[in-house]
Amino acid sequence: MRADEDNLYREQLPNVGSLLVDGGRKLCRPSTITNKFPILKWLPRYRMEYLLQDFIAGFTVGLTTIPQAIAYGVVAGLEPQYGLYSAFMGCFTYIVFGSCKDVTIATTAIMALMVNQYATISPDYAVLVCFLAGSIILVLGLLNLGVLVRFISIPVITGFTMSAAVTIGSAQINNLVGLTSPSNDLLPAWKNFFSHLPSLRVWDALLGVVSLIFLLLMKKVKDIKWGNRIFWKYLSLSRNALTVIFGTFLAYILSRDGKQPFRVTGNITAGLPPFGLPPFSTTVDGEYVSFGDMISTVGASLGSIPLISILEIVAISKAFSKGKIVDASQEMVALGMCNIMGSFVLSMPVTGSFTRTAVNNASGVKTPLGGAVTGALVLMALAFLTQTFYYIPKTTLASIIIAAMISLVELHKISDMWKSKKRDLFPFVATIIPCLFWSLEYGILCGIGANLIYILYSSARPQVFIKQEKINGYEIALVDVKQKLDYASAEYLKEKVVRFLNHQNEEIRLVVIKGEEINSIDYTVAMNIISLKGDLETLHTDVICWNWNVASAGVVCRLNPEMRNIFKFDYSLEEVVAAHFNGISNTTSTVTLGNE
Amino acid sequence: MRADEDNLYREQLPNVGSLLVDGGRKLCRPSTITNKFPILKWLPRYRMEYLLQDFIAGFTVGLTTIPQAIAYGVVAGLEPQYGLYSAFMGCFTYIVFGSCKDVTIATTAIMALMVNQYATISPDYAVLVCFLAGSIILVLGLLNLGVLVRFISIPVITGFTMSAAVTIGSAQINNLVGLTSPSNDLLPAWKNFFSHLPSLRVWDALLGVVSLIFLLLMKKVKDIKWGNRIFWKYLSLSRNALTVIFGTFLAYILSRDGKQPFRVTGNITAGLPPFGLPPFSTTVDGEYVSFGDMISTVGASLGSIPLISILEIVAISKAFSKGKIVDASQEMVALGMCNIMGSFVLSMPVTGSFTRTAVNNASGVKTPLGGAVTGALVLMALAFLTQTFYYIPKTTLASIIIAAMISLVELHKISDMWKSKKRDLFPFVATIIPCLFWSLEYGILCGIGANLIYILYSSARPQVFIKQEKINGYEIALVDVKQKLDYASAEYLKEKVVRFLNHQNEEIRLVVIKGEEINSIDYTVAMNIISLKGDLETLHTDVICWNWNVASAGVVCRLNPEMRNIFKFDYSLEEVVAAHFNGISNTTSTVTLGNE
Repeated sequence: MRADEDNLYREQLPNVGSLLVDGGRKLCRPSTITNKFPILKWLPRYRMEYLLQDFIAGFTVGLTTIPQAIAYGVVAGLEPQYGLYSAFMGCFTYIVFGSCKDVTIATTAIMALMVNQYATISPDYAVLVCFLAGSIILVLGLLNLGVLVRFISIPVITGFTMSAAVTIGSAQINNLVGLTSPSNDLLPAWKNFFSHLPSLRVWDALLGVVSLIFLLLMKKVKDIKWGNRIFWKYLSLSRNALTVIFGTFLAYILSRDGKQPFRVTGNITAGLPPFGLPPFSTTVDGEYVSFGDMISTVGASLGSIPLISILEIVAISKAFSKGKIVDASQEMVALGMCNIMGSFVLSMPVTGSFTRTAVNNASGVKTPLGGAVTGALVLMALAFLTQTFYYIPKTTLASIIIAAMISLVELHKISDMWKSKKRDLFPFVATIIPCLFWSLEYGILCGIGANLIYILYSSARPQVFIKQEKINGYEIALVDVKQKLDYASAEYLKEKVVRFLNHQNEEIRLVVIKGEEINSIDYTVAMNIISLKGDLETLHTDVICWNWNVASAGVVCRLNPEMRNIFKFDYSLEEVVAAHFNGISNTTSTVTLGNE
Repeated sequence: MRADEDNLYREQLPNVGSLLVDGGRKLCRPSTITNKFPILKWLPRYRMEYLLQDFIAGFTVGLTTIPQAIAYGVVAGLEPQYGLYSAFMGCFTYIVFGSCKDVTIATTAIMALMVNQYATISPDYAVLVCFLAGSIILVLGLLNLGVLVRFISIPVITGFTMSAAVTIGSAQINNLVGLTSPSNDLLPAWKNFFSHLPSLRVWDALLGVVSLIFLLLMKKVKDIKWGNRIFWKYLSLSRNALTVIFGTFLAYILSRDGKQPFRVTGNITAGLPPFGLPPFSTTVDGEYVSFGDMISTVGASLGSIPLISILEIVAISKAFSKGKIVDASQEMVALGMCNIMGSFVLSMPVTGSFTRTAVNNASGVKTPLGGAVTGALVLMALAFLTQTFYYIPKTTLASIIIAAMISLVELHKISDMWKSKKRDLFPFVATIIPCLFWSLEYGILCGIGANLIYILYSSARPQVFIKQEKINGYEIALVDVKQKLDYASAEYLKEKVVRFLNHQNEEIRLVVIKGEEINSIDYTVAMNIISLKGDLETLHTDVICWNWNVASAGVVCRLNPEMRNIFKFDYSLEEVVAAHFNGISNTTSTVTLGNE
């Protein structure tokens, strides 16, 4: 009796005891501590020459971050300083917990859009969501559940990002020309734009359009070949800051004449935010709102915001880590901590930003320490520059946002999908339509659902090929299962075999099911195999399961010991067929019951 | 250039035009009409000798149905005659639309339990649900969506059925001993039983227990070998009717003495139900309830009742159709029509019943025409026998229900799963616990969720085996993907390869990914392959995709034409490796761009 034929009668189970001991040992190893605090890995190896690179990179990112943070604070429906509050704590926290040198953590356009619906009621909601989302992300990261983001395909992520970008950009189109929009949603924003176009403010529109063109041109400038390439590169990277400086300066100069042709940002509360626990209850219009009420207001955000921010940071860290393994779960831990710490300083939810990370990478950052410079810059801006920010024209901020959103809409990806696999446009469309016209949260759920449908559909219809063959003069049906068999496909196999037999004119007396590609089966499949045998008996046909692995055969045989006669191992197809029709017993399975 | 290498540059799409034409032709063929009305298939072939068999079978089933129908009407929280209203229209309708001779349609214990929560408010809810559920089932059947039931595995169905049986049986335990139970739920029913046991009614308990023992014994009696086997067989089949007749007779006789030791069913409204549209609005306690309000009261039932009844009828028709293909979608059409027609006569939701179908089959029914006799019997009972039904002791009905539920609890299935595949006990427990202690609807959702988790988990972690091999003196990494690659597993493959390379001491310069078992890939997988190539380049390693099919290669190459160099077909592994390291171009793929 072959050694592993024991499995036919005893199911192999993992040794739970040894699993626990191994898990315990793993938790206490020194490498686990450094995995959870990556700073302990790179800081001891820090070299002095990194300092300059990190400083330059951090400074450049800071110049990009500050205007964007002010702009996104407005997109979120909060006062502009909240954007700055969200832009520094993440940088500092990521230094300790983060493992990718290029990643920068701050609020993003998408996060701002998603908190808008309740942040307009009170900033306390946004800060509470920041804390709760951070806690959820931290727990998921500690539980190593980063694997869940694999279930969202690129078409769905693309559809989501595109629709968010279009929505945010559209909301700003009114600000670009000096109009006030009643809503941040896609259709109302454009309706307002076209219906009020005659009453646009000329100076705002002029400044806005010029700034936008400048930003788009400056993006291309880094590719210029002649002259000092370093100069062109850093000019391109600082285009956001230059636009803001220009617009602010213009507004300031013109205001000294007494008139103010631009709509400006207005008063920003000076100073650093207070450090304290996030609000677990609040007051709205004089009425007390409890924790439970706050939760029910923010509702689905507690699911979608962790999901989207995890997706963003995992995608970004993988994009910038060629050839290395990214510890997705550690990135989630870092992100969770950034949000939790941020909520202590009135931050809204934060995550990695693709554009700023690209700026960081292009600036040649060496370690996460660059973030310290970025954070310090933001703090200085909050401490000293808020009076200057008063003069930032709204149209300048709008142009910055629109330019950033244009780069998020990667139309070439649609043509890529069209060329490569048109079927993948279905989850793309299934995401982008609800995102644009319903809500971002439901849109991404629809996309995930569309993704899952494919997995389930293809697992219910495995590739099963049946053909009639003549072996040694006997007509048999040879069944080839090209995929895993599980409960969803169990009946399909049975139906396909019976249907095939019902349609055959020749007298087929034997069905051989090849099992080399079947790794494992479950109880439902086993019941269906037994049922198939019964069905075939009424059609006066036998079935043989040829070259199935012993574990799968065991699942069936433990249910019905008589079934072991149908499992044949290790013989050629001709031998098996010949033995079956000639009734020679020495090629039947050599498996015997343990006690016989 | 090989003919199918064209696929690298043009994606093969199904010809939509011809699909539509084919579909149209199919709809209009005569066989489709007979498929939709199976009566047109078997009635022309009806023979006179079938008549006697069908009559006997129909009569026997009728004798079982009538007491059960009265009992289930009570389980549903309705007056007993509603059970009888539900028991005839299905039989007649199934004759026209049904395709399995053994199946009988009437209300079942599970259906009764599921409508109880709102039927106690007013019967109109149950009738409306019958109509709506029937319409949903009809549409699903016409759309051929029978395939969806494949996603519910046997462990989940078993868990659901068992918990329903235990709940229903437990609810009746009080009636068996003459107690009144305040609730039909599991724990309250048993609490009530044990706390009020001292005050049981002796005569009810005696009759109940004796009836129950009789029923359980009579079930075994059909296996008796000596004497007239036909006699024993029909005695066993008529045990329900005998029990009811005995109990009713006893109650009637004793009542003529003026005392009534049993709790009896009481007044049943005589006569046939009116024929009319189901109620789309109703009045409860004098208040008008609109259609919308009724819908929100019945809530989740509109999903769970169609699901459960479809599951029942598909399972039953497959169980009794050995060797034949069951048209699951046609059975759904039949079930839908039965419910819709039933709702016109105040029926509650109906489906196939396993026990009655078994009785039908054991009685040797030949065609669905047997149902006509069953239906006629029920009508006659409604017309003439309601005064007799007054005397049916409640304890008798309880004993019938409990006996039926005991046969539904198939404990051997649990031991089967334990022996065969212990892992399948997880979805079983995930179903039975919420079903018993929360609700049937949520329980089956939990079970389905537990099932789906397995499919998704295993598709995200395909079997990928990587080993290092020495081919022609070169160290390579050979990657074997044992399963389909889709978006959920795309990154997993990439990660596993990079992780393997990072852990190797030897210098591996080539990774070969075998693709014989990869049927098709999607856009996300293609992007990950391209990304993997980039990752490996930073590790100074190349990648070759060996023996992938042309369709999969095409998905990648249409995204990035340079990638065609990594796809090798039709050469042995040694040739491919040698060519790679020696740079000989005649073994590279012979694929060329169409225009070159």
